[in-house]
Amino acid sequence: MITASSNGRLKRLIRLNQKAKARREEDVFLVEGVKMFLEAPPEKIREVYVAESFRPDQPCGEKLARTGCEVVADSLFSRISDTCTPQGILCVVEQFHYNMEDLLSGAAPLLLVLENIQDPGNLGTMLRTGEGAGVDGVILSRDTVDLYNPKVIRSTMGSVYRVPFYYAEDLESAIRRVREAKIRVYAAHLGGTQWHTGPDYRSGTAFLIGNEGNGLREETARLADSWIKIPMEGKVESLNAGVASAILLYEALRQRRNL
Amino acid sequence: MITASSNGRLKRLIRLNQKAKARREEDVFLVEGVKMFLEAPPEKIREVYVAESFRPDQPCGEKLARTGCEVVADSLFSRISDTCTPQGILCVVEQFHYNMEDLLSGAAPLLLVLENIQDPGNLGTMLRTGEGAGVDGVILSRDTVDLYNPKVIRSTMGSVYRVPFYYAEDLESAIRRVREAKIRVYAAHLGGTQWHTGPDYRSGTAFLIGNEGNGLREETARLADSWIKIPMEGKVESLNAGVASAILLYEALRQRRNL
Repeated sequence: MITASSNGRLKRLIRLNQKAKARREEDVFLVEGVKMFLEAPPEKIREVYVAESFRPDQPCGEKLARTGCEVVADSLFSRISDTCTPQGILCVVEQFHYNMEDLLSGAAPLLLVLENIQDPGNLGTMLRTGEGAGVDGVILSRDTVDLYNPKVIRSTMGSVYRVPFYYAEDLESAIRRVREAKIRVYAAHLGGTQWHTGPDYRSGTAFLIGNEGNGLREETARLADSWIKIPMEGKVESLNAGVASAILLYEALRQRRNL
Repeated sequence: MITASSNGRLKRLIRLNQKAKARREEDVFLVEGVKMFLEAPPEKIREVYVAESFRPDQPCGEKLARTGCEVVADSLFSRISDTCTPQGILCVVEQFHYNMEDLLSGAAPLLLVLENIQDPGNLGTMLRTGEGAGVDGVILSRDTVDLYNPKVIRSTMGSVYRVPFYYAEDLESAIRRVREAKIRVYAAHLGGTQWHTGPDYRSGTAFLIGNEGNGLREETARLADSWIKIPMEGKVESLNAGVASAILLYEALRQRRNL
């Protein structure tokens, strides 16, 4: 049991929580809570830590028996947790390594392309909504917030395990690659000349979504096949980036399911 | 200029930031930032505070000339601000007082009915999305997070000034009242027997959305005319409450605009 705050492993976990660089160097990330532990692919779980007072229910206990775990004194567990009310279980999980082919290989891929999204909760929600709408993958500009940030992970509600994603060193060439794969690229843009319900999204479709405050950079928007606009009543100038993604992805799903 | 941290007005502003009860007692709320100041209805603005180093642009300077303002030392302004990077302007604004009639009086009202939403960012985003989709109002159960919470206000991006809302002491009787006004009530529910795209939302429509973790209480869901379900691919068990609201409201807008 880890009982000393000077413990090296404890310090390492705190660093893994706080620093994208530390996560990258070890090629891992942290997940917290029972649901996230249960949904974690077993072959990806490297270490499990539970608080002294943690009492697993049956499925959790069975999985713990297979993975093994290290006990951490209750007083210290809050130090390695990113939440205010820790559930008492935390795992070190290996990072995923998808490549562009993984995202482009479907018959009629549905993709989300994100530029410089900064809010961790927004990004996590986009992954969750993306899985719900059946996306084949998410492409992220390198200046987008780290997907392995604990706040992102938490708001994915497990979708991080299942939605392929790819950080593009160069977003422009990634978008060109998407277009070469015969996937039509739609920029969500206030200057769009058609409503978002106009195009046919049943063949390969990618939605470009920009930063929360500034939208897409013009250079990026210019790479799209067309610009689409979500109608807005009242004096609303723009929608939340996560909300805009949801509306577009679910319009695509509606068409694809013929609803 | 306010220069002492012991200043009574400073202490009051901190309390107004932190306590729903303090806001209720004074019948006011705080808004921060240039955009929120500019969009605030002039007749509702009671007081304006600016940081010593705040330099207004032209429209902001013109409005300040009309409202007047009190200067706060830079070192103290962060104490009354709820954000990490304060813009240097904060106002005390009078609370709104809508009644149910305000929300129900339209020809074919579109309403959002929220039960026990807890995340301030979610609630603020729902107001913003609601305005975008053209809602006539939002009804909230009394256990929903305080709409005048600074985090809610910030994420409304100004919609708080324009979207009528009503905290229902008793959500059940509020829903009954909505139905009596010939508005059809749809519960977003995993047990829904039809997709959310099924019903015709062009006449009076209200969407019932439940708590982030637990969804709608069964007693509440039972009051709806019908249950609708948003399709989900993958292993997603539910969508974020703000995302679900957006998908439903924009399906209604799509039908109403015949898109």
